[in-house]
Amino acid sequence: MRDTPPAEIRQLTRAGQWAGTTVGHAPGCVQANLVVLHRELAYDFLLFCQRNPKPCPLLEVTEVGSPLITHVAENADLRTDLARYRIFRDGELVEETGDISTYWTDDMVGFLLGCSLTFEAALQKVRIPVRHLDVGSMVSVYTTNIECASAGCFSGPMVVTMRPIPGRLVSKAVTITARHPISHGAPVHIGDPAAIGIADLGRPDFGDPVPVYEGETPVFWACGVTPQTVAMRSKPALMITHAPGYMFVTDRRADELHLP
Amino acid sequence: MRDTPPAEIRQLTRAGQWAGTTVGHAPGCVQANLVVLHRELAYDFLLFCQRNPKPCPLLEVTEVGSPLITHVAENADLRTDLARYRIFRDGELVEETGDISTYWTDDMVGFLLGCSLTFEAALQKVRIPVRHLDVGSMVSVYTTNIECASAGCFSGPMVVTMRPIPGRLVSKAVTITARHPISHGAPVHIGDPAAIGIADLGRPDFGDPVPVYEGETPVFWACGVTPQTVAMRSKPALMITHAPGYMFVTDRRADELHLP
Repeated sequence: MRDTPPAEIRQLTRAGQWAGTTVGHAPGCVQANLVVLHRELAYDFLLFCQRNPKPCPLLEVTEVGSPLITHVAENADLRTDLARYRIFRDGELVEETGDISTYWTDDMVGFLLGCSLTFEAALQKVRIPVRHLDVGSMVSVYTTNIECASAGCFSGPMVVTMRPIPGRLVSKAVTITARHPISHGAPVHIGDPAAIGIADLGRPDFGDPVPVYEGETPVFWACGVTPQTVAMRSKPALMITHAPGYMFVTDRRADELHLP
Repeated sequence: MRDTPPAEIRQLTRAGQWAGTTVGHAPGCVQANLVVLHRELAYDFLLFCQRNPKPCPLLEVTEVGSPLITHVAENADLRTDLARYRIFRDGELVEETGDISTYWTDDMVGFLLGCSLTFEAALQKVRIPVRHLDVGSMVSVYTTNIECASAGCFSGPMVVTMRPIPGRLVSKAVTITARHPISHGAPVHIGDPAAIGIADLGRPDFGDPVPVYEGETPVFWACGVTPQTVAMRSKPALMITHAPGYMFVTDRRADELHLP
């Protein structure tokens, strides 16, 4: 699947012929986190994204009621083109499913947010090792004690991804990811995990742990799973998201979206 | 006034002791365009900004009903801290005033958008001449045939500012302003005015004309006056904006807001 074009990944997923993650797929193409809400909560969430651009960098917002993506992908349908979705009711994860057609109503709005899977290709391109890709596991994801700026009914802690980076390459990792603002941009924290409320790097809240070797520094980037912890705190009647690692793959190349 | 701190500019304006423009004031500090709308139109406008980040780069959105700015300035009140406002009713400019307290209702939302007055200081710092500042006039502003991405009830043409730049400095001007994405970022067009629907550079739609000398290229940046032309097209019952050149001056330095 690694070199399958985005449109084909979406088509295979829609047809039920691919149900895996998108980790490492379509390198260089922008992948996206998904949030779906009823229109009555859309203003608060849009404002939440505006106030928290690092965890929630907006790529596209659908028209009210339309599941179709028109800007970052062609012939794309948010109801079917991701392999795994999560249904949150009143802040509780009640179901994971491969198709949300039965949940979609004509007052729903879909939000696509940038994703750190995108900048990993940029890191590798300049020879910065990405541990979890090298060992074939999921990125380590942690809930922090960094409080997001609230907006209306939405508030909650920032979720981050962690990658161990050799000390001499940390500056380079900052510089490269700063050039990808819509894929979470530069790190939000570099160094001591305890300073942002992470007690044990070996026990991530999502994904898999990875070893941090001598001479390496833990580097933390804001993560698009943040809306899921915000959902748990804010308890909207219904919020639909992607399942971590099962992203929407856009047709757009990172370079294309990030050029000024 | 040039070196008066932002907090004092706002205080003098509030007290009615300063009623002039903010052009060239508080160099290095971020200045902002203002849009005020009733809550019922706030989602559409927020989405319009998300879809048109070049003309409408959002700096801060107030809480519903609150005229207070808390993120980019302290002790700031949107009802009184700008020297001149424009009142649009059903798409028509019906009044200019120095105080909008009597218009403010408890369902209003204020939007501050970045402004090109901010990046002019950055241009001058690297010795790129800014003609209208050198001759002491207002920047030249034009309505183009570039259609903004619409959002709900809001649609309309993009408004741009033009600065003549010596050909050998155009690359530098692009690079510097690309680093200021919340002040409209890199130019949207460089060269032939007719290509974006401008028939005569000598007759700007707002502001003053400036000469373009031999060896200079007209360079066009997206402009925060865009919401005013959008108001004329979209005809919201009430939209309040700043008057061009009479901006909200924030406490934040451009470097501070633009660092990743």
